[in-house]
Amino acid sequence: MPLKTNTLYEKIADDIALQIKAEVYKGGEKLPSIRQLSRQRSVSVATVQKAYELLEDRRLVEPRPKSGFYVRAIDRKSPSQKVDLLGLPNQVQIHNMATDILYACEGEGITNLGTAYPSIEFLPIKQLQRIMRKLIQLEMKDLVVAHFSSGLRQLKHQICRRLAEAQCQVDEEEVIVTNGCQEALTLCLRAVSKPGDTIAIESPAFVGLLQAIESLGLKALEIPSDCVEGISLEALELALDQWQIAAVALVPAFNNPSGSDMPLDNKKHLVELLSQKGVPLIEDDLFGDLAHDGFRIPPAKAFDKNGLVLYCSSISKSVAPGFRVGWVCPGIYTAKIEGLKSFTNVSASSIAQASVAQFLSTGAYDRHIRHLRKEYANHLEWFQKNIELHFPLGTTISAPKGGYILWIELPMQCDTGKMFYDAIEKNVSFLPGKLFSTSSKFSHCLRINCSVSINDDISNAIVTLGQIAHRHT
Amino acid sequence: MPLKTNTLYEKIADDIALQIKAEVYKGGEKLPSIRQLSRQRSVSVATVQKAYELLEDRRLVEPRPKSGFYVRAIDRKSPSQKVDLLGLPNQVQIHNMATDILYACEGEGITNLGTAYPSIEFLPIKQLQRIMRKLIQLEMKDLVVAHFSSGLRQLKHQICRRLAEAQCQVDEEEVIVTNGCQEALTLCLRAVSKPGDTIAIESPAFVGLLQAIESLGLKALEIPSDCVEGISLEALELALDQWQIAAVALVPAFNNPSGSDMPLDNKKHLVELLSQKGVPLIEDDLFGDLAHDGFRIPPAKAFDKNGLVLYCSSISKSVAPGFRVGWVCPGIYTAKIEGLKSFTNVSASSIAQASVAQFLSTGAYDRHIRHLRKEYANHLEWFQKNIELHFPLGTTISAPKGGYILWIELPMQCDTGKMFYDAIEKNVSFLPGKLFSTSSKFSHCLRINCSVSINDDISNAIVTLGQIAHRHT
Repeated sequence: MPLKTNTLYEKIADDIALQIKAEVYKGGEKLPSIRQLSRQRSVSVATVQKAYELLEDRRLVEPRPKSGFYVRAIDRKSPSQKVDLLGLPNQVQIHNMATDILYACEGEGITNLGTAYPSIEFLPIKQLQRIMRKLIQLEMKDLVVAHFSSGLRQLKHQICRRLAEAQCQVDEEEVIVTNGCQEALTLCLRAVSKPGDTIAIESPAFVGLLQAIESLGLKALEIPSDCVEGISLEALELALDQWQIAAVALVPAFNNPSGSDMPLDNKKHLVELLSQKGVPLIEDDLFGDLAHDGFRIPPAKAFDKNGLVLYCSSISKSVAPGFRVGWVCPGIYTAKIEGLKSFTNVSASSIAQASVAQFLSTGAYDRHIRHLRKEYANHLEWFQKNIELHFPLGTTISAPKGGYILWIELPMQCDTGKMFYDAIEKNVSFLPGKLFSTSSKFSHCLRINCSVSINDDISNAIVTLGQIAHRHT
Repeated sequence: MPLKTNTLYEKIADDIALQIKAEVYKGGEKLPSIRQLSRQRSVSVATVQKAYELLEDRRLVEPRPKSGFYVRAIDRKSPSQKVDLLGLPNQVQIHNMATDILYACEGEGITNLGTAYPSIEFLPIKQLQRIMRKLIQLEMKDLVVAHFSSGLRQLKHQICRRLAEAQCQVDEEEVIVTNGCQEALTLCLRAVSKPGDTIAIESPAFVGLLQAIESLGLKALEIPSDCVEGISLEALELALDQWQIAAVALVPAFNNPSGSDMPLDNKKHLVELLSQKGVPLIEDDLFGDLAHDGFRIPPAKAFDKNGLVLYCSSISKSVAPGFRVGWVCPGIYTAKIEGLKSFTNVSASSIAQASVAQFLSTGAYDRHIRHLRKEYANHLEWFQKNIELHFPLGTTISAPKGGYILWIELPMQCDTGKMFYDAIEKNVSFLPGKLFSTSSKFSHCLRINCSVSINDDISNAIVTLGQIAHRHT
């Protein structure tokens, strides 16, 4: 991103920012004093003062009373994996570990920052109650009988309408309702691959995707990705040349766990690239509706001309995780996935489908989502600030522009897998980084779910995690 | 079964029954007149008359006015596949055909005797309405949030309680709630096998099982079975010696499609046999609760000492197919299936689970099932009679002691696959026999769903099917 320079103090600020980026000054180091800099640059003290204030606004530096300005030790913007060397396709073996950890997260008395379910306070209980009371009164028969179908017509209609608002045209015939997004992902993987095949994924990648890959006997090839723009398309292209890849499976919007948001141009380029190679893309857009600024970037599916994008999503992050309603729009794989779905479990629960269709059909969903976006932006801000306060120097935190998940990189010597059990002993949980990769390269990272009610328990949990992190540093 | 002989006329009746069984007199043939027989046997005319009446009660013979007694052309008792030679493990390739047929069955204006969903008149709409209204009022929060769990505790409890009533002790920890029985079957297959493995099944076998086997890249080995006692254990034992079999998957109780009901001794022997060989048994007990006489024979799972029986069932045939609530008790595979379930689709819909748990916990379920049993016995009787009236000579009909499905064997020259499309043209559907096997040996058979409201449409549908069958004979 080229720096736009307007005034003298902005120019000075940009120069210092570049030096920080180049690690001329490292996290926690003292910057030149205002007087020094004023002399070096032959500018007024006031100008330097303004430059530092700007850097403070940008959260790059922080003032310390009676001491001067320091490079912020904790960087929200770039807990980035550098685009490193491409690894090999790997067997995935995280299931047993993941199961133990996920169950521990939900244990009695645990302040759960691990599993990424939204907190009850963010779910539209009253509206759903109203909708369901009516459905049970008026349409009970239809809800109880079975339909040999790939989903309720009215729900498919709403899904297409919402996708059209995101500039993505999908026909109702292409929509298959699933038991949540996880099922959509599993069905897609089954449709495009056979055991032993390789799936290219982000690094870090969504733990549920890794588990699905493991359960189907597939291999995962992790493609270097960063926490801002997501997967490196250069690295992906290299991988596609080098390996036989059955499919690419990504979370382009507000990635879980990294928080990255793939720019529109990248999405377009990605779809073109895969189209040339004839490789299908499984797009997990679970958080797509939760952009904090309310701006819905079209999904990659919007650029799909050849039906090679299998688009997956659900309402589990915004409306009712317990309902298990998701969907997939699988392009040329529609017939295949319809079959796989029907003999996996016939169809999704009718009452859940009908309730969601009804909720999506009114303005209530839009109002609900608008509220959620603001709340999640505030929650992330609160967590970021508190983590900055309590975590060790050298910590970096993701800065997602949507969703409610934070990805935290601790100093390299921290082993968050070990920290996890210390945390559980103190009745706090998170997800350790090793769940998000086939390698150990994220073993100093952790994921935090910020969709929780902020209260003393949560404040204390962050303090506790900070203390544990300090001990492991 | 040894014949118990009490009186002279019973003895004569038994002798004639044996002759019919041995095909001394074939279906549709005239039997000796009363006078002839009275002379041959040196017994009174009245005694022979009583013998024939007894045979008439047993539905083996029928009187024709001014002509005498005839062997019933249509035999309800034994549309049996003889225990023929064991085939080879086969690829299953029925999916495309099955999908076309199942969708056609549910087409607009079709009198659907094909898909085996229960009719709305047999579902406890009012009770479920009451239960759900209450749940939504009082427990909505719990229904909307997600639980990383293998099922609601209260539902697991009810499942164990019901199993205990069938003399089958299962611990709550062993119960995993699924999205219907089909999902339970798929999870079990995934847990016990890998692509390319062979699964031993009944012949004919449940179409959904065949589809699951196909979708997982497994092979099916069909074991000779009959319509009374189900799978031949001798043939199965032979198959186990001859082939590497990953698992045996059966519907022992009120088999779909054949209607067979495996005797308790056979179940015991089956479990022992498989236990010796270390081969898991997938037991689909979907119709287990629907014995017409109300007597619940324990499932094979009741004899499971080594955790090798994976027991599957659901409420889709008796309470609410649209809810998609089933379960599996997978013995030593519990941890494995918990994992597969969680990364297939996390869990089943909470509202559906809670409603079913509530319904099972009261006497309402028992009353409902008592009612269903009687109704289904009556419905089967009605269908059997009407099929006998309208179908060609040489037709045999199954005589299931539970459930609501009939399996009909037409004269060998009938091709029910072709008949199906003639029927659809006349707005009637059924399932052709070829859906229930990897071979063509049931291409003269068809399956009829009797859980429908009996009315003129249904009467006409049977007449229509009879006419089509006559044309194809």
